[in-house]
Amino acid sequence: MTSAPAHKVIFDTDPGVDDAMALLFLHRHPAIELLGITTVHGNADIDTTTRNACYLAERFAIEAPVARGAREPLAMAKSASPAMVHGDDGLGNVGPSFAPSRTPDPRPAYRWIIDTVRAHPGEVTLVAVGPLTNLALALKEDPAIAELVKAVVIMGGAFGVGGQGGNVTPAAEANIHGDPLAADLVFTAPWPVTAVGLDVTHRVLMSNADFARLRDQGGEDGAFMWQISRHYVDFYSAREAIDGCYVHDSSAVAYVIDPSLFEVRRGPMRAVTTGIAMGQTLQRPDDRDFPPGDWDGLPSQGVCVGVDAERLLTHFMETFIATEEAAS
Amino acid sequence: MTSAPAHKVIFDTDPGVDDAMALLFLHRHPAIELLGITTVHGNADIDTTTRNACYLAERFAIEAPVARGAREPLAMAKSASPAMVHGDDGLGNVGPSFAPSRTPDPRPAYRWIIDTVRAHPGEVTLVAVGPLTNLALALKEDPAIAELVKAVVIMGGAFGVGGQGGNVTPAAEANIHGDPLAADLVFTAPWPVTAVGLDVTHRVLMSNADFARLRDQGGEDGAFMWQISRHYVDFYSAREAIDGCYVHDSSAVAYVIDPSLFEVRRGPMRAVTTGIAMGQTLQRPDDRDFPPGDWDGLPSQGVCVGVDAERLLTHFMETFIATEEAAS
Repeated sequence: MTSAPAHKVIFDTDPGVDDAMALLFLHRHPAIELLGITTVHGNADIDTTTRNACYLAERFAIEAPVARGAREPLAMAKSASPAMVHGDDGLGNVGPSFAPSRTPDPRPAYRWIIDTVRAHPGEVTLVAVGPLTNLALALKEDPAIAELVKAVVIMGGAFGVGGQGGNVTPAAEANIHGDPLAADLVFTAPWPVTAVGLDVTHRVLMSNADFARLRDQGGEDGAFMWQISRHYVDFYSAREAIDGCYVHDSSAVAYVIDPSLFEVRRGPMRAVTTGIAMGQTLQRPDDRDFPPGDWDGLPSQGVCVGVDAERLLTHFMETFIATEEAAS
Repeated sequence: MTSAPAHKVIFDTDPGVDDAMALLFLHRHPAIELLGITTVHGNADIDTTTRNACYLAERFAIEAPVARGAREPLAMAKSASPAMVHGDDGLGNVGPSFAPSRTPDPRPAYRWIIDTVRAHPGEVTLVAVGPLTNLALALKEDPAIAELVKAVVIMGGAFGVGGQGGNVTPAAEANIHGDPLAADLVFTAPWPVTAVGLDVTHRVLMSNADFARLRDQGGEDGAFMWQISRHYVDFYSAREAIDGCYVHDSSAVAYVIDPSLFEVRRGPMRAVTTGIAMGQTLQRPDDRDFPPGDWDGLPSQGVCVGVDAERLLTHFMETFIATEEAAS
């Protein structure tokens, strides 16, 4: 007996190695109905991330449409793509094994988001794991959609919980740094936002042994994840002295599937848009008092400050590797 | 047998309840030779903090001269003084018990600092527990003093260690927020700076029982500290639900006396001078890699990230209350 998937999701993404893994997680998980994939600049340029999204959709028979998104952040030039993390091709230098015949929807991503949200009022969860340019453009074009979206879950930010700083500057995490003005617009709009940032994703470590299990027991998905992750894991192993990599984008997916995996702190949140802290994320916790300031009158949003990493990884692994219980 | 005090100190201060306590700590501790007291805007206006410094010096027979410092931050107007913390008079609404006849040195504080540093090259430790305006003015007037100062120890900042945010905004601690441009100049000058910020001072709690011990066994100093701290403790008790108060300024003094009380992280540090994060302090730890950025080529400074609170409090209490060992 199967019930209808609990969550209609639009996945806004810049694939990206861990983006590809998160996409497969969404695609395979029974609680998720993937409505569409919107692409954005970030881990690679927009041509590459869009090509990768089309390739992934075709290779893994993902029916949801792809819509091509923003080439650049709202108010600045795109910074250099992090090829040292995701490879020159955005897929760990493994590259697509064929040129995809899938083509994007004719509409730009922000318009596709607006149309889809309006087609399913109150039902759509936006899962955004790159710079937030498309979401901000959608808000600017049609501010009323904020009230029609069920939830926004982002992978992004570093809120200083547990001493975790940024990853592209001492202050800033890459996705927010990639378009801080867009992030500030998204954080302060009247829709419910939850940020899954480095504060929690740096506590979720996928080991090389986990990747080997995926490769050996996870079918085509697992073999693919092993392949594309070698370059990515090498980057993290060298930089952070860990045997594996952090689980960034899939942690945002896990929040949608099971928010009880996380401890959430509530309060208005903002992104710093200029200066040496550009791209930093800040929250004014609701339970703390401050003199009047730049957070007043803004919606209270959620920031993940704790995570059950072991249970999160189990959710992920069991989505690809049938357990005896699940198979029986 | 007594040896010469180990540390010649200029105390730059905005008394201020915990400033007054830190001044008495410096005055009574045998390892400290207090060369002078320079005043600054901050916990109250400059007239009040200078009056208070003269009063404290006269009442407690502190021979070191007082020099009056800056009325305002470098590049903005002074924000409202926090009377809810330090009282309207800066001394917990207890007020000076007499009008001091001591008058400040004719020189402005920044000039007095320059002259005194040049009179003792390589020997002076600047302990600064208010906004850093005087130190920045001294640097601007005579940049070469940076090479002649032994050490700069500040109470200020909130570096996000252990999730500690600011106290006047979600990002900023009051002293740095009080003159962020001055702080950035002080942090990036070629002298050794150690920041004792909220990351550690919020872990050092002086309880009401400690204050009662000071009152009953700490002589005139102890009785005075009890008196002036009632308003201050009430503020913290109400806001933070603690039975007592945090030890801010005296923690910076404790660092001078015994740096082994602290765990220090090294790396260039900066203050944010504009925007919603204004007054935030950021450090790029030396052991972390980042792409080229706003911290490059700057001196590596120290940020206190851990503290032995119990031992720190013992240092403080035993300075005022003779132990049996010390008395024998």
